[in-house]
Amino acid sequence: MSDTKMRMVNAFDTDRADDLPPAERVLVERRARLLGPAYRLFYQNPLHVLRGEGVWLYDQDGNAHLDVYNNVACIGHCHPRVVEAVSRQMAVLNTHTRYLNEKVLDYAEALLATFPAEIGHVMFTCTGSEANDLALRVARRATGNTGIIVTETAYHGVTSALAEASPSLGAGVKQGPLVRLVPPPATEGDRETVGRAFADGIARAIADFAAHDIRPAALLVDTIFSSDGVRANPAGFLREAMKTIHAAGGLFIADEVQPGFARTGEAMWGFMRHGVIPDMVTMGKPMGNGYPLAGMAARPAVLESFGRDQRYFNTFGGNPVAASAGMAVLDVIREEGLQENAARVGAVLRAGVAALASRYPVIAQIRGEGLFIGADIEHESKPSPAIAGRLVNGLRERRVLISASGPLGNVLKIRPPLPFSEDNAAYFLERMEEVLKTL
Amino acid sequence: MSDTKMRMVNAFDTDRADDLPPAERVLVERRARLLGPAYRLFYQNPLHVLRGEGVWLYDQDGNAHLDVYNNVACIGHCHPRVVEAVSRQMAVLNTHTRYLNEKVLDYAEALLATFPAEIGHVMFTCTGSEANDLALRVARRATGNTGIIVTETAYHGVTSALAEASPSLGAGVKQGPLVRLVPPPATEGDRETVGRAFADGIARAIADFAAHDIRPAALLVDTIFSSDGVRANPAGFLREAMKTIHAAGGLFIADEVQPGFARTGEAMWGFMRHGVIPDMVTMGKPMGNGYPLAGMAARPAVLESFGRDQRYFNTFGGNPVAASAGMAVLDVIREEGLQENAARVGAVLRAGVAALASRYPVIAQIRGEGLFIGADIEHESKPSPAIAGRLVNGLRERRVLISASGPLGNVLKIRPPLPFSEDNAAYFLERMEEVLKTL
Repeated sequence: MSDTKMRMVNAFDTDRADDLPPAERVLVERRARLLGPAYRLFYQNPLHVLRGEGVWLYDQDGNAHLDVYNNVACIGHCHPRVVEAVSRQMAVLNTHTRYLNEKVLDYAEALLATFPAEIGHVMFTCTGSEANDLALRVARRATGNTGIIVTETAYHGVTSALAEASPSLGAGVKQGPLVRLVPPPATEGDRETVGRAFADGIARAIADFAAHDIRPAALLVDTIFSSDGVRANPAGFLREAMKTIHAAGGLFIADEVQPGFARTGEAMWGFMRHGVIPDMVTMGKPMGNGYPLAGMAARPAVLESFGRDQRYFNTFGGNPVAASAGMAVLDVIREEGLQENAARVGAVLRAGVAALASRYPVIAQIRGEGLFIGADIEHESKPSPAIAGRLVNGLRERRVLISASGPLGNVLKIRPPLPFSEDNAAYFLERMEEVLKTL
Repeated sequence: MSDTKMRMVNAFDTDRADDLPPAERVLVERRARLLGPAYRLFYQNPLHVLRGEGVWLYDQDGNAHLDVYNNVACIGHCHPRVVEAVSRQMAVLNTHTRYLNEKVLDYAEALLATFPAEIGHVMFTCTGSEANDLALRVARRATGNTGIIVTETAYHGVTSALAEASPSLGAGVKQGPLVRLVPPPATEGDRETVGRAFADGIARAIADFAAHDIRPAALLVDTIFSSDGVRANPAGFLREAMKTIHAAGGLFIADEVQPGFARTGEAMWGFMRHGVIPDMVTMGKPMGNGYPLAGMAARPAVLESFGRDQRYFNTFGGNPVAASAGMAVLDVIREEGLQENAARVGAVLRAGVAALASRYPVIAQIRGEGLFIGADIEHESKPSPAIAGRLVNGLRERRVLISASGPLGNVLKIRPPLPFSEDNAAYFLERMEEVLKTL
């Protein structure tokens, strides 16, 4: 396995295809033949799924796998409200935003109502990559500047402009000359200390930009720092960072693809926990529960010059089917109390992982908020991606799906759909302990 | 109306919102308030649509408007086969390509079967912008070069990398330093002459690159040159262009978002008419008949280094719902004989427009193939965007939807859904003559 392949934590190694059962080997070979070499599968033993329902995915033999990883199916796989909303609207009208239609306006209104009043406009795209790429275009137009600051293991998307600002893609994808990396927020310390240290890194990046005659257009951060290994607390540490980028003439963009849509339990949006109001907010994966829907919300002043000189059109973005999917997701989050559930079950799950940590010292620090938990895996007090991999693959053999992340790949990423129950948490923790016993 | 606004042909002028009926004025104001200033509407009198079926869109009063413009709903608005395929699959499974699933492989196989055997792999995205952006990333990785060549009024997408290679977005969006523009193929002359002249422009761009120590990564062209004013013939003129870019070490990317999926009647893909086999082919709008589905197909050798060093993942791209939508579109094109229909009705439509041209000299040259027609509008032998605008808006008042394009905005863009019938063509031509009489 090459070094660059290694950079994707938890990827199936195609060199080991011969070890698979015949049916899966055929599928793996067909994928390579049809889709080419850029696609990756999860797990040493890739999962063949045929059906999803709630927090469960079912394989070709009908076995149920507990999904403790998927933030796209945020209100549960194949939620009937989304299926019904999309099916109904698709049969009636599915066209673009250059005709007048109320569906996109009703949805925009409902979505903006979940934001502070300062965030006044929302624009629709199909993917989080498109939303982040649009935010960069707007930031560069609004500020007249070009530099982009992201964290050391950031992931923000796959367009040309974002791939070069997504170091988590590995050494095969180079950072662009207008990109600077900063250390992520520390995992220890109080709000002031963590906030100050994070802002100091940003100030150093700004100084380095200045030395190259570059001025910063934006600081772009995932407000729960998923690919940096999950850094949610102490809430409030983003305030100093926002002040620092603003003082240098740049904008603050909150990438809410991961923490957004109530996942943290504490708030609908990750930035809210930090007591900041970003200039732009980007949204993606969970927004349509699997329907390709994403967006970018902004303070109106930020959009003025871009809107005047650079119109934006996204063929499928904001069509009435996408709007219906998005509205169903907002309705279900509210009606099923999923934010409250994320807070309550998230606390149970964290306490359960902490209890395991007290008995199994490979689990070191546990971080996160609501239904997004990161747990450092260590061996003899050193990060151990190898043991993290054994845990992830051991759970997969016991039909529980998680993954790993972080700069070293040793952080378990525990991030189930929002309707995850206490029973689901107990089931996960039992399987987890089974695997821990085998180490 | 500002100059930069002017650059979008056929955009509603928001300064004229007071002239609208009260209900539409409210919607226009709500749009501006919620979606901000970057969105544009079609027509002096924007259309409020509530329902679509086949080639018809229905407004708030139940009036039927003949859609002679939409290439997204390529097999007809709300085609029941796509509605059914998406509804059924959404209720069963909608997850990503990092698990094994046969739907995406079955679709990839069916799609690749429509290409020459040399095009061996296909990768899935959600939008044509993502497909073109991915093609640029792959071209730059495969060649080690950076320069991109496009035509003078090209449109290829809205990501940062594509907007700077899409001069049709207007003067408010600048071309990037790694982009060169070339004149589009001429509208007169035989295949050799047109091909040679187009290739000469490319050779000049390559020479200019060389003078700046830039080497070309790719020539990226819409193989029917829609935004350049529709240039379909003489078929074959792309051969010399491909040779020229290859000789300089760059790749040839065919953007099939417009001509693809049988629109030209002659072939499934626009490049096929020219007797070339591109290095990469990008697809978008019609691919899922409105479901956000797009993709990039490539010669395997081109993907080798990218796939090894730069994995690609698109969260919603190639999920089983998208694959089901795409498969339904391919099935319907074949079963309903839509390629043959595009050839047959396209010929009738072109002959009808030619007959009008013989009586109304404002219609000058008529170009295109199948169900994609461009017609130059002139006044006293000079291009007249003003009269083109009056025709487009006059047709809209008679409930027939077309638009205009081209570097000067004087080319009528006639591009109906593929099931367009001879009766539909007759209806269009009658309304067109009514408007011509008013000029």
